[in-house]
Amino acid sequence: MQNNYLLLLEYQGTHFFGWQKQKDKPTVQETIENVLARIFQQKVKLVGQGRIDAGVHALGQTANFLAPARIPSANLKKAINSLLPPSIRVIDIKKVPLDFHARFSAISRTYFYLLWIGNDLPVFLRPFCTPCPFRLQIKKMQEGSRYLLGKHDFSAFCSGKDFTGSKVREIYRMEIIHRRKVALPWVNYQGKILEVEIEGNAFLKQMVRNIMGTLVEVGRGKFPPGKMKEILASGKRENAGPTLPPQGLFLKRVKYPDSIFQ
Amino acid sequence: MQNNYLLLLEYQGTHFFGWQKQKDKPTVQETIENVLARIFQQKVKLVGQGRIDAGVHALGQTANFLAPARIPSANLKKAINSLLPPSIRVIDIKKVPLDFHARFSAISRTYFYLLWIGNDLPVFLRPFCTPCPFRLQIKKMQEGSRYLLGKHDFSAFCSGKDFTGSKVREIYRMEIIHRRKVALPWVNYQGKILEVEIEGNAFLKQMVRNIMGTLVEVGRGKFPPGKMKEILASGKRENAGPTLPPQGLFLKRVKYPDSIFQ
Repeated sequence: MQNNYLLLLEYQGTHFFGWQKQKDKPTVQETIENVLARIFQQKVKLVGQGRIDAGVHALGQTANFLAPARIPSANLKKAINSLLPPSIRVIDIKKVPLDFHARFSAISRTYFYLLWIGNDLPVFLRPFCTPCPFRLQIKKMQEGSRYLLGKHDFSAFCSGKDFTGSKVREIYRMEIIHRRKVALPWVNYQGKILEVEIEGNAFLKQMVRNIMGTLVEVGRGKFPPGKMKEILASGKRENAGPTLPPQGLFLKRVKYPDSIFQ
Repeated sequence: MQNNYLLLLEYQGTHFFGWQKQKDKPTVQETIENVLARIFQQKVKLVGQGRIDAGVHALGQTANFLAPARIPSANLKKAINSLLPPSIRVIDIKKVPLDFHARFSAISRTYFYLLWIGNDLPVFLRPFCTPCPFRLQIKKMQEGSRYLLGKHDFSAFCSGKDFTGSKVREIYRMEIIHRRKVALPWVNYQGKILEVEIEGNAFLKQMVRNIMGTLVEVGRGKFPPGKMKEILASGKRENAGPTLPPQGLFLKRVKYPDSIFQ
């Protein structure tokens, strides 16, 4: 008998060439598949919720796989974690219906992006924030972001390398927050991190990073907020702002219907 | 005319084989000396406050160097930072008297060590905390740590590879704190980090990491707190606990007499 297992994963993107398997480069998918093959003594195919670019971090990446039902989930979690490199960690593992698919069953994805306002990015935050040397007007960024809400063709915010067909996606929610509480024993910088959180049904290649680059142009006053609407309507990538780097981008959560876990 | 410059440095230890120059391995001292040689077009010798082992982080490492007095300090800071890799950063640069010596002028060093209590160390904290699978009794650790205060021969807590002569050092202060406030946008774990801060005139090789390994034995109940006194008196390294790893250890601050900065 086979079980369908859903993995909830955390990993630091800096250490991998993204999620998707590639020739001669370490990726997260391949690293986990190799571990699963060792545990089950057979080839196991891991289905991710989507591709994640090199350098992007994950707090809640999801993936599923079919495997023989002979190891209890808790033991399986321990076994996988003991064989994974410490830069990837299985946070949770759940049995799901056999027809569950990490990508097609998902109802939303939430990402956030961290900007460090200023030139003095501390070395310890380097893989996690993108430094931004400009003063940003948050209200304008909030105004600009509202034009993106809802269902649109996001071609203007899509990497030219995305050949996936329809460019229509739906954004449910965007929040732009000036983080005041940043406290770890070795950092205590107040009000220096600007966080943009975005939830949508799905995202095109580099869509969040292109939206971020455009929102920064709005925040620094180079684009008026209303230009977001024009850029979107134009469908032309060259009208939008630059692609911000993957450092700073986190996949926070992938949502599935509650019924799957019942 | 020559100036004596004091550098205040921050760096992530994971990326270097420690401070001290070594053949064929990237060290912090060598990296900065190469940058200074490019700026001043001559060999510049950098004097650190002390050696720091591979993997140990620095929030406040200090070092000084003599160089021609032709660049204002603020410009020099910018020039150095623009040539350094982003894992090292000059936080401050000050002109100091010509007889100032980063090591011999120092009156104290403060380190802290971070333990993650539990097995579930998040991937993002991996270079910064040592996971500790035991429940620790902080009161017992505090009691044990008191025996270390004051001037003692610390041979029992010194790596066998330290050939520096006298093993007498003075510890001024030790604090063991259960960190309740751990909040970055991507971590919010409460009460999982135990921080031990220690200030002394100077430290022997691996002394903080050996003290930490012994304090953990006290905290988990393997050694009674009074054993700290016996271990210290014995002068024998084999009586103390294990050497904890460099991840988790931070040089926080090096103190100099105020008169230097006047």
